[in-house]
Amino acid sequence: MTLRLCYPLATWTFILLIPGLSEGGKLLVVPMIGSHWLSMKEVAHKLAERGHEVVVLKPEVSWNTGDKHGHAYTVKTYPVSTKLEDLDNTFKVYLETHLKSMPFPKNVIAIFNDFTRLFESFYSQCKEMFSSMETLQYLNESSFDAVLTDPFFMCGATVANYLSLPFVFFMRGLPCNLHFEAAQCTSPLSYVPRTLSFNSDHMTFFQRVENTLISLLELFYCNAIYQDAIKFSSEILQREVTLLDLLNSASISIMRFDFVFEYPRPVMPNMVFVGGMNCAEKKPLPKEFEAIVNASGEHGIVVFSLGSMVSEIPMKKAMEIADALGSVPQTVLWRYTGEVPPNLPKNVKLVKWLPQNDLLAHPKTRAFITHGGSHGVYEGICNAVPMVIMPLFGDQMDNAKRVESRGAGLTLNILEMTSKDISDALKAVINDKKYKENIQRLSELHLDRPIHPLDLAVHWVEFVMRHKGAPHLRPAAHDLNWIQYHSLDVFAFLLAVVLLILFISVKCCMFCCRRCCFKKGRKSKSGKSKTH
Amino acid sequence: MTLRLCYPLATWTFILLIPGLSEGGKLLVVPMIGSHWLSMKEVAHKLAERGHEVVVLKPEVSWNTGDKHGHAYTVKTYPVSTKLEDLDNTFKVYLETHLKSMPFPKNVIAIFNDFTRLFESFYSQCKEMFSSMETLQYLNESSFDAVLTDPFFMCGATVANYLSLPFVFFMRGLPCNLHFEAAQCTSPLSYVPRTLSFNSDHMTFFQRVENTLISLLELFYCNAIYQDAIKFSSEILQREVTLLDLLNSASISIMRFDFVFEYPRPVMPNMVFVGGMNCAEKKPLPKEFEAIVNASGEHGIVVFSLGSMVSEIPMKKAMEIADALGSVPQTVLWRYTGEVPPNLPKNVKLVKWLPQNDLLAHPKTRAFITHGGSHGVYEGICNAVPMVIMPLFGDQMDNAKRVESRGAGLTLNILEMTSKDISDALKAVINDKKYKENIQRLSELHLDRPIHPLDLAVHWVEFVMRHKGAPHLRPAAHDLNWIQYHSLDVFAFLLAVVLLILFISVKCCMFCCRRCCFKKGRKSKSGKSKTH
Repeated sequence: MTLRLCYPLATWTFILLIPGLSEGGKLLVVPMIGSHWLSMKEVAHKLAERGHEVVVLKPEVSWNTGDKHGHAYTVKTYPVSTKLEDLDNTFKVYLETHLKSMPFPKNVIAIFNDFTRLFESFYSQCKEMFSSMETLQYLNESSFDAVLTDPFFMCGATVANYLSLPFVFFMRGLPCNLHFEAAQCTSPLSYVPRTLSFNSDHMTFFQRVENTLISLLELFYCNAIYQDAIKFSSEILQREVTLLDLLNSASISIMRFDFVFEYPRPVMPNMVFVGGMNCAEKKPLPKEFEAIVNASGEHGIVVFSLGSMVSEIPMKKAMEIADALGSVPQTVLWRYTGEVPPNLPKNVKLVKWLPQNDLLAHPKTRAFITHGGSHGVYEGICNAVPMVIMPLFGDQMDNAKRVESRGAGLTLNILEMTSKDISDALKAVINDKKYKENIQRLSELHLDRPIHPLDLAVHWVEFVMRHKGAPHLRPAAHDLNWIQYHSLDVFAFLLAVVLLILFISVKCCMFCCRRCCFKKGRKSKSGKSKTH
Repeated sequence: MTLRLCYPLATWTFILLIPGLSEGGKLLVVPMIGSHWLSMKEVAHKLAERGHEVVVLKPEVSWNTGDKHGHAYTVKTYPVSTKLEDLDNTFKVYLETHLKSMPFPKNVIAIFNDFTRLFESFYSQCKEMFSSMETLQYLNESSFDAVLTDPFFMCGATVANYLSLPFVFFMRGLPCNLHFEAAQCTSPLSYVPRTLSFNSDHMTFFQRVENTLISLLELFYCNAIYQDAIKFSSEILQREVTLLDLLNSASISIMRFDFVFEYPRPVMPNMVFVGGMNCAEKKPLPKEFEAIVNASGEHGIVVFSLGSMVSEIPMKKAMEIADALGSVPQTVLWRYTGEVPPNLPKNVKLVKWLPQNDLLAHPKTRAFITHGGSHGVYEGICNAVPMVIMPLFGDQMDNAKRVESRGAGLTLNILEMTSKDISDALKAVINDKKYKENIQRLSELHLDRPIHPLDLAVHWVEFVMRHKGAPHLRPAAHDLNWIQYHSLDVFAFLLAVVLLILFISVKCCMFCCRRCCFKKGRKSKSGKSKTH
């Protein structure tokens, strides 16, 4: 197969494909924290490389939004009072809650509260941005053509609405199905699993009941999570806004998934799918990693990382994992910055950082142990490496479900897994051929596309900049209220007409019957009078 | 603007973009008659050029399915008893019905009957194909990888199902919204106008009522139109099939429109949009046309064609049109093969054929008078020429509505239009700048795309050939029945649970009340007895 060849060629030929290269525009990028920024910065960089003035707006104290090495975009910061330790701590508490065993519904309530706290901590930076007169003046005077943002924490959506500029979303998704709801895209509850439901698209009856109940709950809890953002945005925009008001004017939504990974479902014409954009660039392995991989012999290696945002896990868990890793003959490269477990086996090499995508691309890689972040999962898919997934928070459990339901990996519950569970799962994905075959098939389907996802994302951002939006892709559904959208007024009218016709028909019949009876009555009366 | 440059470059770079060039596959193409074949033959030709064995299966007597000059695909014919005159006559009768003024509902019934007759005439050729043992043997022994077909007349869908091969649809659409229904794609009645409703996506209340009524009617009339195909397919496939059974296994549906022309609406991930594919190739004008255009002076020219399928119109209409054309200072190039109207003005040149797309691309072209076929309308959009549309049959009225609602042209009712109406409309689109501005904007939006539609179509056909289908894009909705899909069982269950809880609560309350009353009663009794 020559499928992987299409990467560099697509990137190279793209410059020829898209017009307007010489007509540089001006783009404001409002990033989202953490791993969300990983592939977005590639888009910002590429756009800047293509001659646009790209300004990335960040708080002075930013959390995990490091810039691409040698980036071509400009970074503009605004003053904030938050300290990095506070942000670190808020995330640490959020993560610890996920690693604690708690009974239902205490666990759900604790996660909800922690997420709300996490959101508020980061959103307070957004509020400070709007207090910085210098920043606001800069934004208002800069004449940007468009805004590119990940709306997860709502700051970018508020900024875009405030500046009345066309905006492009770049995201994996939003809680409560907001990304589809705001775009007026239907999500049938019968086969589209709700976020955090951990269901697949083939649900049993009770899973469908659960899916419906989650969708009912969503009516309340997203407004509760984002209430601070709604209130603040209403003040800033000087009108009462809802969550959907903030989100529904996006010209284009660039989604960080595709339908090899996500379950097929209805979509809208202004949605663009760029899953796997992050695993494009492949570099040769650094020498120290090359040496480890070469020394692994016929058994090869296992790549293990719980993502850039998780620095350590409880020692008990780390020891259980270490114990399990010792049971396979492969060399395990484990990215871990926490305290070294005392039972670390010889075949496990702890590293502070690893070139994940390049290691996964190596033919000697047999398995990938991951937390199930969407970037990591796509690197697994791109490189056809079967996965053992230990989801921690957010969409990771849903991502794991998607990989597992395709037979391309196994999912472990990080709270309940034993050393044996980990060992069994790892041996299964390495030794049972079906996992490799399935991920290979997914990989081939995923890589067989007419245009590289990075080029696609760049095209649509430029499209919005060139044409000042994409109003031709905005469905007329936005102009209808709930009753009109669901045609309830039409059905009520038709029902009324049918009932009216029925009523008139019945009345007519009764009138006719009465006339008949009356005539008969008169006849029989006259008959009777005759006989008398 | 350099937008149009992207055509040849995209086509050129495509060879580098897509892998698998050297791994030629084998494709069966079952075309649809008439103009439907126009852009499909380009796809067949391109696929053959890319090294695939492409076989186009046609009846010996075929209607308007001429082949591309110097085509690279193979044509395989099967014997039929139909004569070309019979097919011509059937279509002539169908067209004449559309040009006759009749009161409602006589006109609708006449059109329905004529369409059914037209369908049966052409479908009889399909039946003869299945009677040809030699053809069947050839098909069964040829080991095709996939089938590419326009399913409008259902023959291709029957063949694809019969051969149990993955298949790709290539179409403008199907009657009764079948193309969306079969793909499990929702079409909200409130803003998605039904085919032949002539509504836009912004409907008044009564237009929405009309849209709903049409959708109810569709439940019956498509089964009536296609009853012959359903019956015959059931025999051929040796199982009872419905219309949706024939259509719902398409791996990919390549749609000959985009959302510059069509109204934005929900779509599915296995739908690919290639509107405007037909106006890619631009050649210099033949000398005789170049001379006419150059001689037109500052006023320029008007291009006028009612499509390749309409050779003549009633003389009265032709004279009215001729009269109107004389009222503009432009030179009118009219493609017309009927009897020359005696009042033909000097500025009108009648021609048997014209290079439509190349003429529309000429900067001297001021307006385009068209019947509103989708190919012609896209040529108008690609070349930014405002249109006067005289729809005749099929989707042409819907197409006209789409152009008119974007302010890029005017629609005339061919039955009612007077010479003055034509003249007024033509002068308006030529002299009122807003038409040119609107079509220019549509044109820029349409041409600004990341990959050329022909390359996109070719990619997805090859994708299906390479991967033996695209099952990962098939929504799980196909595995649900109507009740499950709409979650009616879930809602019934939840309602039952709520009612049960209510019932138990009421019973508990009543029980408690009774106990209270009983105790009170006993107390008062015992009190009473104490007082006694």
